[in-house]
Amino acid sequence: MSKSLTISLDAMGGDFGAEVVVPAAVLCSNRNPELSLILVGDEKIIRQHLANARLKYPEKLSIHHTTQVVEMDEPPALALRGKKDSSMRVAINLVKEGEANAAVSAGNTGALMATARFVLKTLPGIDRPAIMTTIPAIGGHTHMLDLGANVDSSAEHLHQFAIMGYIAANEVFGEKNARVGLLNIGEEDIKGNDQVKQAHQLLKQDQVINYIGYVEGDDIFKDSVDVVVADGFVGNVSLKTMEGLAQLISHFMREAFNKNIFTKMVAVLSLPVLNSFKKRVDPRRYNGASMLGLRGIVIKSHGGADVFSFANAIEIAMAQVEHDIPNKIKSHLEAHIG
Amino acid sequence: MSKSLTISLDAMGGDFGAEVVVPAAVLCSNRNPELSLILVGDEKIIRQHLANARLKYPEKLSIHHTTQVVEMDEPPALALRGKKDSSMRVAINLVKEGEANAAVSAGNTGALMATARFVLKTLPGIDRPAIMTTIPAIGGHTHMLDLGANVDSSAEHLHQFAIMGYIAANEVFGEKNARVGLLNIGEEDIKGNDQVKQAHQLLKQDQVINYIGYVEGDDIFKDSVDVVVADGFVGNVSLKTMEGLAQLISHFMREAFNKNIFTKMVAVLSLPVLNSFKKRVDPRRYNGASMLGLRGIVIKSHGGADVFSFANAIEIAMAQVEHDIPNKIKSHLEAHIG
Repeated sequence: MSKSLTISLDAMGGDFGAEVVVPAAVLCSNRNPELSLILVGDEKIIRQHLANARLKYPEKLSIHHTTQVVEMDEPPALALRGKKDSSMRVAINLVKEGEANAAVSAGNTGALMATARFVLKTLPGIDRPAIMTTIPAIGGHTHMLDLGANVDSSAEHLHQFAIMGYIAANEVFGEKNARVGLLNIGEEDIKGNDQVKQAHQLLKQDQVINYIGYVEGDDIFKDSVDVVVADGFVGNVSLKTMEGLAQLISHFMREAFNKNIFTKMVAVLSLPVLNSFKKRVDPRRYNGASMLGLRGIVIKSHGGADVFSFANAIEIAMAQVEHDIPNKIKSHLEAHIG
Repeated sequence: MSKSLTISLDAMGGDFGAEVVVPAAVLCSNRNPELSLILVGDEKIIRQHLANARLKYPEKLSIHHTTQVVEMDEPPALALRGKKDSSMRVAINLVKEGEANAAVSAGNTGALMATARFVLKTLPGIDRPAIMTTIPAIGGHTHMLDLGANVDSSAEHLHQFAIMGYIAANEVFGEKNARVGLLNIGEEDIKGNDQVKQAHQLLKQDQVINYIGYVEGDDIFKDSVDVVVADGFVGNVSLKTMEGLAQLISHFMREAFNKNIFTKMVAVLSLPVLNSFKKRVDPRRYNGASMLGLRGIVIKSHGGADVFSFANAIEIAMAQVEHDIPNKIKSHLEAHIG
């Protein structure tokens, strides 16, 4: 990365607020000399967490004081109306005003999406922004959207998600002519609901994206597709299913290794193997979901993210700035849709 | 089990046909003296596979010869119209005619559902049959339906699925006043699509089933719900997501243990632990999905089922016969809905 760039961070968002966001900011700043960060939130609290930080480029970190915080369970409409000086809102305002190139927040997804949409607006040709994340797969990764921003998506919405996903996967995540699949179910006679069937027709006609047709839930983890497109309800259920199953498996593994003195010894011996395995599926490495389709870059970190994870979300924001994703999506839409 | 009971088996269905179905029949017959089995399919092929079988109760196994086979990728409408002497169709006919108490098939799900529905009809008060399966969870199991028989389910359909799931979970799987949850997504502002919101209202008013409200994808694996109700599209994506993630994790585990001589030694030492773990999540133990809502019992085995798995599906059919599930669902509907 060569250009200078500025990212605003909602320092109060997420389950841990400044306790996680400030050290993550320090970590990223030290790793990226060209990066400027604006910590948005309660100045006193932020300063406390900065007190013992070892900053290589202290001039690259600034604080923007705000007086309000959006709660993790606060209804989006309330946050939007009542919290105009929240750390979340102001972090996004800074993007709108051109003071920052992107915003990152671990705050409540609904409020973040509503605020980002209200402040930044969607791109021309995009009705609804979508949330995309990266998922580990055999042979690499898969990118999946939408993950819950939209329910009852129409065929046109699914087409828009496909375009946004295709561009982001190629530009931000280095895929080459990413293979785009539409999530469906396998039974021939009932293949898909009406929206999915109609979206399939639209996608087949799209001359630019590399549409490979229907994929099923198990394809997400195979090396057969790069971008999986789904309605937000379906995508969210799929993502939560993954989280739940991963927790179940790790619970059963712990129980199996904790059974008796022999299994405990095996566990110690297995540690390097288990760690190298865990590293590959570590959700922290995948933290940072992109809110695509806005006139600006907003990255949503998991609410429970730790320092390592939040730093990952900041670096995804950096990549999106470098590749100018909103403008690339805009150009594609202008050239090919209307 | 004390009553005598008869189950018809589609001996030609699934990826392996008689090669799996016949030995599974032998296994179940030897384990259950009260069980009569009718092997439906090509008599010559079935006899070949029976040739070396050690049957404890040879009089309990009979063969019903048929001349056609429904292919795994055959469109259901074609199978229904053109294959009136298929092993699948005749196995279900035997249930209709009272010759068998239940049918089990590993054949193509779409054709099986279409045939079962056409031959047996749905129960009064049930618009659409649903497919239910059992999923391992912390502290036991969860039962989930629908898994792909229905897309675009209305609120009323979801309510019917909930009733069927509640009854089957209590009666067949021994749950006590099973907790029924409606699968939804977590964001407050957009909580659910219209069908889910309306179904939530219907379920809250149901005086009989133990409705506990919305659950999310990760709750499937927790000890917080016993029956998870979803539209077939959503349920199928969730189930396929589980299959895909389980394959990915086992692939990564194998790679981690195969890395070098040290990790291979650890793998050998870990074998008993890994096996006890694998046993708990072994999908073969959960084979046998129930097609609920029909005027008869039909169990769908996984197409790739092995002998152990297919035997499991037969035993689920036995339990449904013993508990007279279709009549219990019918009585509930008559008493509380119709």
